[in-house]
Amino acid sequence: MSTLRVELINTGSELLLGTVRDSHLQWLGKELFPLGFRFDRQTTVPDGSGIRDLLMEAFPRADLLIVTGGLGPTTDDMTRDLVAEFLGLKLCRHEITLERIKERCRARGFAFQPRMERQSMVPEGALVLPNDHGTAPGLYLPAVEGISWSSPHIFLLPGPPRELQPMVQSSVIPLLKDILLREVGCDPMERECRTYKIVGMGESLLESVIGLELSKRGDLEVGYCARPNEVDFRLIGSGKVLDEVEPKVIQSVGDHLVSDGEKSMEEIIVNLLEEKRMTLATAESCTGGHLANRITNVPGASAVFKEGFVTYSNTSKTELLGVPAELIQVHGAVSEAVVCAMAEGALLKSGAVYALATTGIAGPGGGTPDKPVGTVWLALAEAGKVTFSWKELIPTDRLTFKQVVTQSALDRLRKRLKGFVH
Amino acid sequence: MSTLRVELINTGSELLLGTVRDSHLQWLGKELFPLGFRFDRQTTVPDGSGIRDLLMEAFPRADLLIVTGGLGPTTDDMTRDLVAEFLGLKLCRHEITLERIKERCRARGFAFQPRMERQSMVPEGALVLPNDHGTAPGLYLPAVEGISWSSPHIFLLPGPPRELQPMVQSSVIPLLKDILLREVGCDPMERECRTYKIVGMGESLLESVIGLELSKRGDLEVGYCARPNEVDFRLIGSGKVLDEVEPKVIQSVGDHLVSDGEKSMEEIIVNLLEEKRMTLATAESCTGGHLANRITNVPGASAVFKEGFVTYSNTSKTELLGVPAELIQVHGAVSEAVVCAMAEGALLKSGAVYALATTGIAGPGGGTPDKPVGTVWLALAEAGKVTFSWKELIPTDRLTFKQVVTQSALDRLRKRLKGFVH
Repeated sequence: MSTLRVELINTGSELLLGTVRDSHLQWLGKELFPLGFRFDRQTTVPDGSGIRDLLMEAFPRADLLIVTGGLGPTTDDMTRDLVAEFLGLKLCRHEITLERIKERCRARGFAFQPRMERQSMVPEGALVLPNDHGTAPGLYLPAVEGISWSSPHIFLLPGPPRELQPMVQSSVIPLLKDILLREVGCDPMERECRTYKIVGMGESLLESVIGLELSKRGDLEVGYCARPNEVDFRLIGSGKVLDEVEPKVIQSVGDHLVSDGEKSMEEIIVNLLEEKRMTLATAESCTGGHLANRITNVPGASAVFKEGFVTYSNTSKTELLGVPAELIQVHGAVSEAVVCAMAEGALLKSGAVYALATTGIAGPGGGTPDKPVGTVWLALAEAGKVTFSWKELIPTDRLTFKQVVTQSALDRLRKRLKGFVH
Repeated sequence: MSTLRVELINTGSELLLGTVRDSHLQWLGKELFPLGFRFDRQTTVPDGSGIRDLLMEAFPRADLLIVTGGLGPTTDDMTRDLVAEFLGLKLCRHEITLERIKERCRARGFAFQPRMERQSMVPEGALVLPNDHGTAPGLYLPAVEGISWSSPHIFLLPGPPRELQPMVQSSVIPLLKDILLREVGCDPMERECRTYKIVGMGESLLESVIGLELSKRGDLEVGYCARPNEVDFRLIGSGKVLDEVEPKVIQSVGDHLVSDGEKSMEEIIVNLLEEKRMTLATAESCTGGHLANRITNVPGASAVFKEGFVTYSNTSKTELLGVPAELIQVHGAVSEAVVCAMAEGALLKSGAVYALATTGIAGPGGGTPDKPVGTVWLALAEAGKVTFSWKELIPTDRLTFKQVVTQSALDRLRKRLKGFVH
């Protein structure tokens, strides 16, 4: 990575009130990493003059500063003015930008508002980054090295993601490449980031089987990110070192490794089914459609997903999947007998090669001492094979329960498709 | 609002690398506002010792500091240690927490890893906030007023949202109320925030029919938050002013008002069905289970949701819902005739009072000049009534498409249940 210190400043009261969720940090983080940049810090401040204090703090420590938001036409949009004032730069009208704004209004049939003129005011010496999806242009102020004082490279970018993102791709990234070449004078890509998605193995266990050993090497940065029944195991280092340790990582985590990249469990499942020209059906009670929904989130799922049954009531288990009513009466809806009958019913009805079934108690109500909230039975049926079924206990909130159960169901199918289990 | 200065610090390299998108700022911002707290600043720093510099900066200016993440068992989890070191506090083992961690491992059938013990180490004087959904407890360190030195109130909370959120609700909010009462000595609730959830009316239109007029009053803060086919219209002001303008707001938005609080569309639907003792079934093609999933996310959905069909293939439309094969051949799967037959088939099969059906082209593939990506037909069938059907064009990404289509389907059912449409 480059040794430049990079900071991101997001302005916007709505971010701090929680009415809007920021997407810039994630998006920019991903875009900048392959260039050799990584954010050392990100800060959110309200609209208005609060940004002044932050500029004062960030200037001495940052080499590169990206500021988002506050470039619009309204009174709370003060970023442009505050940055110019802070740097002691005059604002001058940028005629091309003014013409662009007027042209945009004409094209869209809006009246030009005098307030919009503010958006064509540019600090002297700034490079204007055209905005193809809105009125406020972006601005780039190159670093100035003074004797008693110096300022970092500064990018001012518009707040709306649909304006910022194309501007970064067309204008900011080429400028960043230039900056790197000039300031660092070498190829910054000596470091890569690899992520391994792991299911069925907690982060403590992961650390003890491989993480601790790798972090002791000194030439690797090791990180973990845990989600419901999923851990991202992250390694940052030179390509050479990563290639060297990868076989060890793969061996240590074994069949718990879902993917060695950004692919989700459901993408992996759809890809595996496509490769093998196999089809899937689902029979869901407690997961209520979440399993079908995850699979159909993947483009191309229609080629492998036959059909899904959401059989919430006992009657629907009997009528749609042919689960004998006596079976439910004797064993209860949350039982091994019923989950197997559900999976086999879905297989028969759909003509698919595989069927996954779930029945359990998502809560918060419905638990008994015998079958507490969080109890779930799962089954995987396959044409011409004995149905495999298993039980789990996942006492948590309703949405996490659904996520963990569907993850577990999909993981079993993944292992079957990979030949890890039969 | 209170005059306390509140800051949020999120730790996690994955946030700065962009592999994970932060949700804490938004969620906490929303939770804390009704108490009278508003974040003045939010900062993200990498895992590890970078948090030390930030603590140094934030201590003198903050009255209340919330730090998320870095409390787990792995080597990159350093928040607990760094805060204790910074405050000069010894870490002591908290036996109850250790027992809880061991108990949790037993209950879930995991082996206790020696590394997990770190999570039971607590700075002296800290209050332990139990974690019902994970191993790492939260910690509260009360403010210390010294002569040459003072520290703010500090909350250390676990990174995973499913652990943090219940902990905030059960432990942090009651403590914050106490802090406010002690430090501010008055009821901070002179200002309220009311949110109106509006569907089928864009934010520009909303601004012109009511927003602009209200923002001119000067005694109200007006805000908008747009999501796929849903706008939150936010008013902040005194209870008296809010009561005064509320009838006007309700009149202006008419039947587009889904709820005057935090209730989601799906909660409103389940509540309305419960009240009227009515039942629902779903027949989904393009939404692939998302409709059933949204409904079954609501606790108690089992009382009103009969069953759901995810009929992705033409065969499944015919076999499960009785849609005549010729109908599909003549009109195509994405057509008025087919969506009506799907809804009526689901009604007949399930015995429910209402059935919603969707069939469309989610994309990115599958579009034709005649039926481009984003085309969707929807239907609402009701026992003893003529089926209502309608067409929409929603050219967007796959997940947004599913969200907008299900929102539209549920909104039609809402209007029927409320008697706005027949």
